[in-house]
Amino acid sequence: MSSPESRMAPRLVADSESEMTEIILPNDANLLGNLLGGRLMHFIDLTGAMAAFRHSRTYVVTAAMDHIDFIQPVKVGDLLILKSRVNRAFNTSMEVGVKVWVEHPQTAVLLHVASAYLVFVAVDQNGRRVRVPEIQPVTADEQRRYEGALRRREYREAESARRRQAKQAFAAQKEMETSAAKQG
Amino acid sequence: MSSPESRMAPRLVADSESEMTEIILPNDANLLGNLLGGRLMHFIDLTGAMAAFRHSRTYVVTAAMDHIDFIQPVKVGDLLILKSRVNRAFNTSMEVGVKVWVEHPQTAVLLHVASAYLVFVAVDQNGRRVRVPEIQPVTADEQRRYEGALRRREYREAESARRRQAKQAFAAQKEMETSAAKQG
Amino acid sequence: MSSPESRMAPRLVADSESEMTEIILPNDANLLGNLLGGRLMHFIDLTGAMAAFRHSRTYVVTAAMDHIDFIQPVKVGDLLILKSRVNRAFNTSMEVGVKVWVEHPQTAVLLHVASAYLVFVAVDQNGRRVRVPEIQPVTADEQRRYEGALRRREYREAESARRRQAKQAFAAQKEMETSAAKQG
Amino acid sequence: MSSPESRMAPRLVADSESEMTEIILPNDANLLGNLLGGRLMHFIDLTGAMAAFRHSRTYVVTAAMDHIDFIQPVKVGDLLILKSRVNRAFNTSMEVGVKVWVEHPQTAVLLHVASAYLVFVAVDQNGRRVRVPEIQPVTADEQRRYEGALRRREYREAESARRRQAKQAFAAQKEMETSAAKQG
Amino acid sequence: MSSPESRMAPRLVADSESEMTEIILPNDANLLGNLLGGRLMHFIDLTGAMAAFRHSRTYVVTAAMDHIDFIQPVKVGDLLILKSRVNRAFNTSMEVGVKVWVEHPQTAVLLHVASAYLVFVAVDQNGRRVRVPEIQPVTADEQRRYEGALRRREYREAESARRRQAKQAFAAQKEMETSAAKQG
Amino acid sequence: MSSPESRMAPRLVADSESEMTEIILPNDANLLGNLLGGRLMHFIDLTGAMAAFRHSRTYVVTAAMDHIDFIQPVKVGDLLILKSRVNRAFNTSMEVGVKVWVEHPQTAVLLHVASAYLVFVAVDQNGRRVRVPEIQPVTADEQRRYEGALRRREYREAESARRRQAKQAFAAQKEMETSAAKQG
Repeated sequence: MSSPESRMAPRLVADSESEMTEIILPNDANLLGNLLGGRLMHFIDLTGAMAAFRHSRTYVVTAAMDHIDFIQPVKVGDLLILKSRVNRAFNTSMEVGVKVWVEHPQTAVLLHVASAYLVFVAVDQNGRRVRVPEIQPVTADEQRRYEGALRRREYREAESARRRQAKQAFAAQKEMETSAAKQG
Repeated sequence: MSSPESRMAPRLVADSESEMTEIILPNDANLLGNLLGGRLMHFIDLTGAMAAFRHSRTYVVTAAMDHIDFIQPVKVGDLLILKSRVNRAFNTSMEVGVKVWVEHPQTAVLLHVASAYLVFVAVDQNGRRVRVPEIQPVTADEQRRYEGALRRREYREAESARRRQAKQAFAAQKEMETSAAKQG
Repeated sequence: MSSPESRMAPRLVADSESEMTEIILPNDANLLGNLLGGRLMHFIDLTGAMAAFRHSRTYVVTAAMDHIDFIQPVKVGDLLILKSRVNRAFNTSMEVGVKVWVEHPQTAVLLHVASAYLVFVAVDQNGRRVRVPEIQPVTADEQRRYEGALRRREYREAESARRRQAKQAFAAQKEMETSAAKQG
Repeated sequence: MSSPESRMAPRLVADSESEMTEIILPNDANLLGNLLGGRLMHFIDLTGAMAAFRHSRTYVVTAAMDHIDFIQPVKVGDLLILKSRVNRAFNTSMEVGVKVWVEHPQTAVLLHVASAYLVFVAVDQNGRRVRVPEIQPVTADEQRRYEGALRRREYREAESARRRQAKQAFAAQKEMETSAAKQG
Repeated sequence: MSSPESRMAPRLVADSESEMTEIILPNDANLLGNLLGGRLMHFIDLTGAMAAFRHSRTYVVTAAMDHIDFIQPVKVGDLLILKSRVNRAFNTSMEVGVKVWVEHPQTAVLLHVASAYLVFVAVDQNGRRVRVPEIQPVTADEQRRYEGALRRREYREAESARRRQAKQAFAAQKEMETSAAKQG
Repeated sequence: MSSPESRMAPRLVADSESEMTEIILPNDANLLGNLLGGRLMHFIDLTGAMAAFRHSRTYVVTAAMDHIDFIQPVKVGDLLILKSRVNRAFNTSMEVGVKVWVEHPQTAVLLHVASAYLVFVAVDQNGRRVRVPEIQPVTADEQRRYEGALRRREYREAESARRRQAKQAFAAQKEMETSAAKQG
């Protein structure tokens, strides 16, 4: 794994798969004993960063997180299980999928808490973006997630462009109003 | 504010406006001294919960967070400023907008770090959903955000339905394949 | 703000004004659910440091805190609001005033929790004291606090001198007693 | 120690003496590696609370802290030593003295960091004030601190009364000005 | 799993297997950036408690930990992997084995950090000991650990008895000396 | 203490004696309000590290901890008292003894919670082992612990050798089985 070529050789999804388990402690929760949403996002980000790190073997920085729903409440004392994997790599960024379950204390049944897609960027120790190896999907599920990751990336870029235009149009209108008010 | 009617009387956006400032400490950061994405989401969730609490005056639980981009890196020692407000209320839930800036240490210029929309649900002490007052938009900006909140809610529900259908279609296909394999 | 002169130009109180809001979590509290006094002092120190930093734009170190009374108890789940400003600058130090309120959960009324005066010292990255700009009071309240800050500083110095003398007198007396005992 | 009389029997200063040692960790410090003033106050409050608890054997709540100077900087990795004792008890409150040293890493010499007087109030589990036993000073030093505690208490009460009057005078003047402005 | 019999039916080792992954953050480490031994023991205890909980489905309390060697240093930013399983159950207690690795940042090779045996006790919500199901070893490795657990338990009990006797002998000797000194 | 000779001059046990007191806070405990075993081990490690640091005046790293029993439960709000001392030094390592008590809230009686022996290694700032001064036992108790430390060290080394041999024997047997299976 020492030569530059080998560092950039395509890697398997399985090499990035990561898992985290947390026992929810009192300080992670509100007065009702429910896990705080922000603590859950923190656990999701950490588990996602593990997968991105394992794929790229560089420093990684969170760049974006897609819409996330919290389907199932989590209580103090519960076991939270988080699993992550890299779905696809793009030059210097990676889409990571994270899925979260809570284990029912008595029956051990896993209940789905949330699913998230995050984008991580690979950087060197000066914070400059660096290239990452490609993902080589193997199973049908990996292939499906690999294709979905491209669609989601195109959607993110389109949304980002739309928001930029809306902001500029809004700023232009404000300026026109101000200018009209001055001339009035 | 004591009678049930008055508790449900429409309220102003200004009544929910909240602000949090944090000095970033070493444990909030990675080895490069960058604020962890998950810690930032935690601060966003706390600031959002303040606005939701101030509008509803009940316990609140995070139900969803829309797509979020981290535009600007934040470093240990930086001052992080977060502002939140309720954009609109829907029966037992509220859309909250949170905007985050980092203050440039020398020039005091505020740099935009991230913007987020969160959905909070109002619950009583047994965790059952309770109704919340409506929002009364006053300024043009408040009116614009009030209308945007409805559009975003419809989009979230459509997306949620689309994902449910995709899952069912996926499960149905798997079953067909399994059944075909058995018969083969 | 780049030239040395401009860095030392007098600044407004408003430029240093800072605000922090905290949701009190279980680990901030004792078994009765009361916010620990030391956690409250920690929040006061952080909010004060923000104002001192914003005035000086240097590293700041806490040098002293005046007498403080905790008037109003604060409970887990409460919203704590802290506001700070620089009252006056003296060569390399600044007096900062911090005021703390707790928001009544149902009525949103703010109850006064504590008020504090702190002295911060400006230092460079080697820990050596550096000069800070002067404060330019504008409103009548700012002028009143500006004058009060000088009075409090003189009082602190007088008290400090008194304690030093008391210590020396005490040490001298001990020595005399010891010497007398030896001779006896 | 079971009967109500014995619970209220005067106690020795030595019975309340407490000691805490802390290794300063990165999260207790700022970017320069200096212990944060607020963390130090937190340690002082905890050590003081131990002494107050050991004297009263009830829940205790911090009511006030006198002026405190931070004489000596403390760095990450340093050993911080804090000692506390009850100087005197007054019905439902106690004055506690806390002294703080840092141990020089190589020479083991103790350097004085700060000294503080705190007032703690004894409460039952409903937060209602309860009576505490008296202190029985034994040594000359204990006697001196016992007398000093009374003087400091009188000074605190005088200062508190002065501040109340200043506030009322200030409010009265404001009202007069407002009323004059209306009549003008 | 609802009837009392089924709750006590023997269980598989695989049902208790647990895994935790931690990213080492600055506050987990000393000034050299090494993970603190006590933080590592804390992670070991949490991972062990997960296995004990999954086997017993009751509250669990740490009763003992056998000798542990820290073979490999762990640094800030490293990924720590911990795996645990119940080796054997004895009435109300369980022996749990925990093994810890650190992942080499570049090569992903796992380096062995430590191995530990812990004893957990099952308790109800009043803290009273409750019975736990037996372990049904399946593989040769599970059988070997199952037998080892009995040997280690006997050794622990023998050691415990030996220490008790040493203490009594020591106390008896002290008493004799004191009594002799008095008579002398 | 400046010359190399003096740095290595034998030192007294008393010079290394350390003490830590902790108030147990909610986040240190499980849902039943019991102090987590891992948090207790963390406190033990910190108190042990203090003694090792005070003897060696170098960086210290935890190398091993002997078997430990948790005899007495500890609850939120309790005062935990930990005392440590160096029993003996060996070239670059030290055996430290730590004893832990909990103070009964009403009667102030100390109950024994746990006793532990830890081995710390002295390192320089590059993590390389450095020599430490010898211990000069003075009292009969110190002499007894000094001798016990040698016995425990010999036992640790014998156990370590035994485990290494067991591993090798185990690996050799596995290899034979595999080889036999291939030939079969």
